[in-house]
Amino acid sequence: MRSITGLHAIEEYIKKIGGSEAESPAKPTLVYSRKSHRIDELLTQAQDAKLPTARADEGELDSRVGKGVHRGAILEVPYTVEYVESLREFTQSPIPDTSVVLLLDGVTDPHNLGAILRSADQFGTDLVVIPARRSAHVNDTVLKTSAGAASQVPMITVTNLTRAIKDLQEVGFWIYGGDMAGGSASSANLSGKVGLVVGSEGSGLSRLVSESCDNLVRIPSFGTIDSLNVSVATGVLLYEIRRQQGLFNE
Amino acid sequence: MRSITGLHAIEEYIKKIGGSEAESPAKPTLVYSRKSHRIDELLTQAQDAKLPTARADEGELDSRVGKGVHRGAILEVPYTVEYVESLREFTQSPIPDTSVVLLLDGVTDPHNLGAILRSADQFGTDLVVIPARRSAHVNDTVLKTSAGAASQVPMITVTNLTRAIKDLQEVGFWIYGGDMAGGSASSANLSGKVGLVVGSEGSGLSRLVSESCDNLVRIPSFGTIDSLNVSVATGVLLYEIRRQQGLFNE
Repeated sequence: MRSITGLHAIEEYIKKIGGSEAESPAKPTLVYSRKSHRIDELLTQAQDAKLPTARADEGELDSRVGKGVHRGAILEVPYTVEYVESLREFTQSPIPDTSVVLLLDGVTDPHNLGAILRSADQFGTDLVVIPARRSAHVNDTVLKTSAGAASQVPMITVTNLTRAIKDLQEVGFWIYGGDMAGGSASSANLSGKVGLVVGSEGSGLSRLVSESCDNLVRIPSFGTIDSLNVSVATGVLLYEIRRQQGLFNE
Repeated sequence: MRSITGLHAIEEYIKKIGGSEAESPAKPTLVYSRKSHRIDELLTQAQDAKLPTARADEGELDSRVGKGVHRGAILEVPYTVEYVESLREFTQSPIPDTSVVLLLDGVTDPHNLGAILRSADQFGTDLVVIPARRSAHVNDTVLKTSAGAASQVPMITVTNLTRAIKDLQEVGFWIYGGDMAGGSASSANLSGKVGLVVGSEGSGLSRLVSESCDNLVRIPSFGTIDSLNVSVATGVLLYEIRRQQGLFNE
């Protein structure tokens, strides 16, 4: 959950989304602690856009965004609403050399998505890219399983995952697909700007996505079942990327 | 699930366990494809020990244990029955220098246990030690979440986890506890015989267990939530141990 605190910014945000999030299971909520002409206007605007509103104590608002930060109203934008407006916005901002983007290809189980987002948070993933279709999306189960991380990790929904891969490659990302057919992750060169694509547990990466990757990597196995839970595999690969990027050398 | 195929071995196994597993939710099952005097004796013996019996096609038995391996009956010993009879049996057998033992301290969620056992299988963990109390035990949920790994990983239940740690230390294991207060896992020396203790998500390692460890290790965090799912954390640490033990240098 992020909070928009400026009254003008709130107005602009509500205008921009219009009624487009009316069907969303998690709409932005206008939380207000005072009544004023300005705030009444925002309330009307929110109601017109079918957004929920809630009254809170002044102290409650203080504790959510900090004392003196708000002017009697905040817009709480929940976790399903993208932090990053578009992939373009991300690729056009300065990207550090140790950037990690995680792309999910068909992760449909909300528990797995939640655990993945928790790992994405722990390993400071710069962006998580989720396809609009054939994917779990952030809901209460995901938020709970993620221990709240789902509201912290920058996330974006895209309609075309291979297109997103191409866009990332154009700004210098090397895209690795997690796949049993790949080379060992510990022998791969996972430094620099890394995109990691993980697939569904059942069928792995889709063919098109797999072909779009620059390289495939696997986690070495010594077992009889030969497949990790997708959230564990993602955690291990994010760990290995961060290790190779030198982030653990404190 | 492991299958005991020799008719004499079946008889000995049933004798040994006596009625001791009568209360267990997962008892060994005598599966037979033929009727004979010898098999009738086993059936009676199984019924006396209150073990379930089941008839199957000859082809079914063939497919379970291999053609020509059985003599018309097998005893299927389910996943909750220990493969390793006792910790003593384990510590007194030859232990390779790259041995890994995983000890669980208060992992009570069956989904987490399942995912942990799946990782334990993938990374070729030599033994998983589970306390009898305050712990999830292998059941259908665990077996399913583990993708079957729960029936493959050598496992043992102990009444006293700190005692188990001491026994392992005596045969040369260096015991690491996963704890946010520890040093970075990537900087620790995780080669040699390694015991890894992971704690419950809520409260971490118990004090006594933590004090029994030779060292504490943590997974570096760059996030806001600062805690991985316990099964992800276990997977990452097992990966790091195997990497440092040199098992990935193919």
